[in-house]
Amino acid sequence: MSQYNAPLNDMNFILFDTFKVQEFWQENAHLSESIDVDTAMAILAESAKVTEEAIAPFSRAADEEGVKFDSGDVTTPASYKDSYNVVAEGGWIGLAGNPEFGGMGMPKSITAMHEEMMCSADLAFALYPGLTAGACLAINAHASEELKELYLPNMYSGQWTGSMCLTEAHAGTDLGLIKTKAVPNDCGSYDITGSKIFISGGEHDLTENIIHLVLAKLPDAPEGSRGISLFLVPKINVDAQGNLQEPNAVSCGSIEHKMGIHTSATCVINFDGAKGYLVGEVNKGLAAMFTMMNYERLLVGLQGLGAAERSYQNAKLYAMDRGQGKGVERMTDKDCDPIVVHPDVRRMLLNMRAMNEAARAFGTYVSIQLDVAKFSDDKEQAKLADAKAQLLTPIAKAFVTDTSLEGCIAGQQVLGGHGYVREWGQEQLVRDCRITQIYEGTNGIQALDLMGRKVAMDKGATLNSIIDEIKAFASDNNSVNASLMSELNKAADLLKETADTVLAEAATDKNAIGAASVDFLHLAGYVLYAYMWAKMVVAAESLEGNEALAESKKLTANYYFARLLPRIHSLKAQIESGAELLYTFSAEQV
Amino acid sequence: MSQYNAPLNDMNFILFDTFKVQEFWQENAHLSESIDVDTAMAILAESAKVTEEAIAPFSRAADEEGVKFDSGDVTTPASYKDSYNVVAEGGWIGLAGNPEFGGMGMPKSITAMHEEMMCSADLAFALYPGLTAGACLAINAHASEELKELYLPNMYSGQWTGSMCLTEAHAGTDLGLIKTKAVPNDCGSYDITGSKIFISGGEHDLTENIIHLVLAKLPDAPEGSRGISLFLVPKINVDAQGNLQEPNAVSCGSIEHKMGIHTSATCVINFDGAKGYLVGEVNKGLAAMFTMMNYERLLVGLQGLGAAERSYQNAKLYAMDRGQGKGVERMTDKDCDPIVVHPDVRRMLLNMRAMNEAARAFGTYVSIQLDVAKFSDDKEQAKLADAKAQLLTPIAKAFVTDTSLEGCIAGQQVLGGHGYVREWGQEQLVRDCRITQIYEGTNGIQALDLMGRKVAMDKGATLNSIIDEIKAFASDNNSVNASLMSELNKAADLLKETADTVLAEAATDKNAIGAASVDFLHLAGYVLYAYMWAKMVVAAESLEGNEALAESKKLTANYYFARLLPRIHSLKAQIESGAELLYTFSAEQV
Repeated sequence: MSQYNAPLNDMNFILFDTFKVQEFWQENAHLSESIDVDTAMAILAESAKVTEEAIAPFSRAADEEGVKFDSGDVTTPASYKDSYNVVAEGGWIGLAGNPEFGGMGMPKSITAMHEEMMCSADLAFALYPGLTAGACLAINAHASEELKELYLPNMYSGQWTGSMCLTEAHAGTDLGLIKTKAVPNDCGSYDITGSKIFISGGEHDLTENIIHLVLAKLPDAPEGSRGISLFLVPKINVDAQGNLQEPNAVSCGSIEHKMGIHTSATCVINFDGAKGYLVGEVNKGLAAMFTMMNYERLLVGLQGLGAAERSYQNAKLYAMDRGQGKGVERMTDKDCDPIVVHPDVRRMLLNMRAMNEAARAFGTYVSIQLDVAKFSDDKEQAKLADAKAQLLTPIAKAFVTDTSLEGCIAGQQVLGGHGYVREWGQEQLVRDCRITQIYEGTNGIQALDLMGRKVAMDKGATLNSIIDEIKAFASDNNSVNASLMSELNKAADLLKETADTVLAEAATDKNAIGAASVDFLHLAGYVLYAYMWAKMVVAAESLEGNEALAESKKLTANYYFARLLPRIHSLKAQIESGAELLYTFSAEQV
Repeated sequence: MSQYNAPLNDMNFILFDTFKVQEFWQENAHLSESIDVDTAMAILAESAKVTEEAIAPFSRAADEEGVKFDSGDVTTPASYKDSYNVVAEGGWIGLAGNPEFGGMGMPKSITAMHEEMMCSADLAFALYPGLTAGACLAINAHASEELKELYLPNMYSGQWTGSMCLTEAHAGTDLGLIKTKAVPNDCGSYDITGSKIFISGGEHDLTENIIHLVLAKLPDAPEGSRGISLFLVPKINVDAQGNLQEPNAVSCGSIEHKMGIHTSATCVINFDGAKGYLVGEVNKGLAAMFTMMNYERLLVGLQGLGAAERSYQNAKLYAMDRGQGKGVERMTDKDCDPIVVHPDVRRMLLNMRAMNEAARAFGTYVSIQLDVAKFSDDKEQAKLADAKAQLLTPIAKAFVTDTSLEGCIAGQQVLGGHGYVREWGQEQLVRDCRITQIYEGTNGIQALDLMGRKVAMDKGATLNSIIDEIKAFASDNNSVNASLMSELNKAADLLKETADTVLAEAATDKNAIGAASVDFLHLAGYVLYAYMWAKMVVAAESLEGNEALAESKKLTANYYFARLLPRIHSLKAQIESGAELLYTFSAEQV
């Protein structure tokens, strides 16, 4: 695989020119002391260095090596220890962590960029620090002070990693079915017994300890999802000073053999009366997990983007170098031109870049909602931002990963046969990216969450506030690019119209939401990406000192509106076919 | 992976009820003696048995085992020898072969069904007999009688396999750049020297000999693609009686490590002054290869379909079995229903089935054109059929494989995390299917072939004849389903309108064809699939003795028109954005 070059220019443009995140930082008491533009740029530049030099060069060989399982022990690739130490020692795992316990307290808009770079460098590697940071979020939000003091500093520092133990063999999407038991014991803790599957980083050799967050049920718990509690279960028990004690009754039964992310250990983890500590309230485990879910799901979207960005970079390099055929306008006087001269190769590359840059902007837009919800002192503003983040998160997870897979496939296609051969790395990106559509709630579940909970439950109010924001933006910036703003306005109307149609159908058909959901999520995604491109065009208009970037943004916005946004028309028609059609078939007939 | 069940009912419905292939067989002197409905059904039933029992059960384990390379030798999976012997001894490799030399002379409409079944059972395995049959086609069409007599019988019988040696490291799509040399020697043959890459089945341990068809240039050959000749180069030399002699100067330098088709040996083959025999005329090698290209490209489409059909079957079984969540209307009284109850799962399965059955019908439609072109005594009819086959083939290759990959991804998604784990086989189908979009000419090249050669070169005449055929069919069958036929008619108009737009643009912009090509190929594909569904609806209307199938066809046709055909609207808009847009960017800016 070729060298990875972190897209710092684009990141800085999106953060500081397009969204002007520094304005919120400056006016906010929590953030103004810890972050400003210079600090942020320095952090991102350092992140670029770490990911480009200490992680990306090893991702191809690491995939071939994979993780090995032997009698309960998991061995990661040889290069991973050094890479992990660089990440841990750089403090990157605690980048967003609570400063009280050793975290750096950075806003999501910054950590999201870091996460994208990590995933471009090596998606599977990025899961180890990424899941640790996620576990810390849940612990910080819900655990007792005692647990926080004991565990957070060593997790932020990377001395210990974290894992999330949710899924059981018979309970994936439907967590209400889990059977893992938690029985209170004499020490005030719980004995956890059960078997979990698909546990990323459930066992490995990167750190001396692993802190599992485990969903389990108390003996007298209510049926279904209302009876789930959350527990912290260390692999190795820890005394009050954080010293390692005897091993806990936690073991790795096996690891999965998967399509991709070969270096991420996906484990069966068995708890045989393991000592666990309650996190949050009894029977409120699912809610506790959900507080971190938006962050995790946004991270998964960024994983997809990371893969698609790397794929674009490889494909672009190849297209500039590989000679085959001649262009209508010649690029060289040789017997063939670089394939970037051909229109269809351009189409593939431009599709990828237009989607990637929109995804990066959209990730920032969602991050900003999360930051405002978390840091703003204005409760109304925070509440609205939280509602927006809730609605946008499933789109950031599912739309970004669905279209990122499409991007990775295009990036592979640009290389022809070489894209199918492992040494070039393009096929690895397809295999790695593919998991992002499945885990942390399949993209079908994300779509149900979007339409069923986020859109339908407030009767479209939050969605409409976003649509209003888009329409106001289009109207305010009409002078910048009238035709583009007019298209944006129409696209926003189409989104509203379609949402209204589905909500009306849902009043009489309870399957209406599910039938429309995935297409609707994509429709919303394309409209929001159009909004992102419109924002970037406006920022480009007043950008100083980087004419090449400004021109690229304007051209690419036009490209997006002409060649990608039209997909909304088909999606609308598909949605309007309704739910009843799906049930003209019996189960056997499907 | 679950058991494969060959879709014989659907195949018989498509062949004998929808297209009534037996009518052409009966009226044709060449075919009426060798094939009738009963014989054809018996052949397909036997093919089902062979693929279900002797191939499909081993595909998962074989993928894990892969092919091994050691000092020039390639070892295939242990199970492959037995599977191969069953296929060879059953005469399946010569199914379409010339009866003069031991082939069975079956029409393509029958062999296409066999090929689909082979590829559902194991796409990578199917390449060994599939490429042999392809090589036989070229030999039969262009080689001397002497070469035919010497090689065809042993290839049809499967005693020897064949390979196609086209690509070189610097020459993939652009074969005019090849450097392999052919120097005439004293024996009337040629000494072939050069190195070929990406040679499927270039070396293996299934047979005692391998017959390579090699593109090379004579010392005085014209530049570019007009100077390419075709040679037959056996791995082991053969005397006039077909007895093996000393090894030829042919060696396997290495094999590729690929995303999928792990059991197909993709070889670097080195020719070091190897003895080769001219096939066809000097400098007409590319044309000789092209005579078999339509068959090969259709086969690749069927490979995609084969994978997507297997993926559908696995996903359907899983969806009927896996309990998770509850349906709006309950299917069981347990604490969860099978996931087939959920609308989005239905959407995924129905998308797959609607596309697969249309692909099967479309493969038959194209096969019929090939059969009429080959067997008809009516020269006008044969010529028109040939022109149609030429135009439809790139669609059968690229549209079928692009949408089959989409199907395989959906089939993997239905299984959630289990779809990502190797043991279930769904991810293998994605990896295997992915190559079909790349080899035998990438799908981008297919689209250029469609628009640039097949549509533009006769100014749309052949395309218009197909559009007229569709419109006439819609009009003739209005009484069967007026709304569906009206939609079909509109879709045909939209296809014509879009083609006209691009052809008009192409008059002033030479990049217009390339810029529109992939989207246009997809647009044509969706319209042709609509035609296939309309044909199946009409056949279902008068089908006797199988009400379940008739009902399924009618429901699925409605589904296709409502949920899949609308994609044409976005494609049209994307095409209309034109070529100029792609060249507003410099090469660096892409």
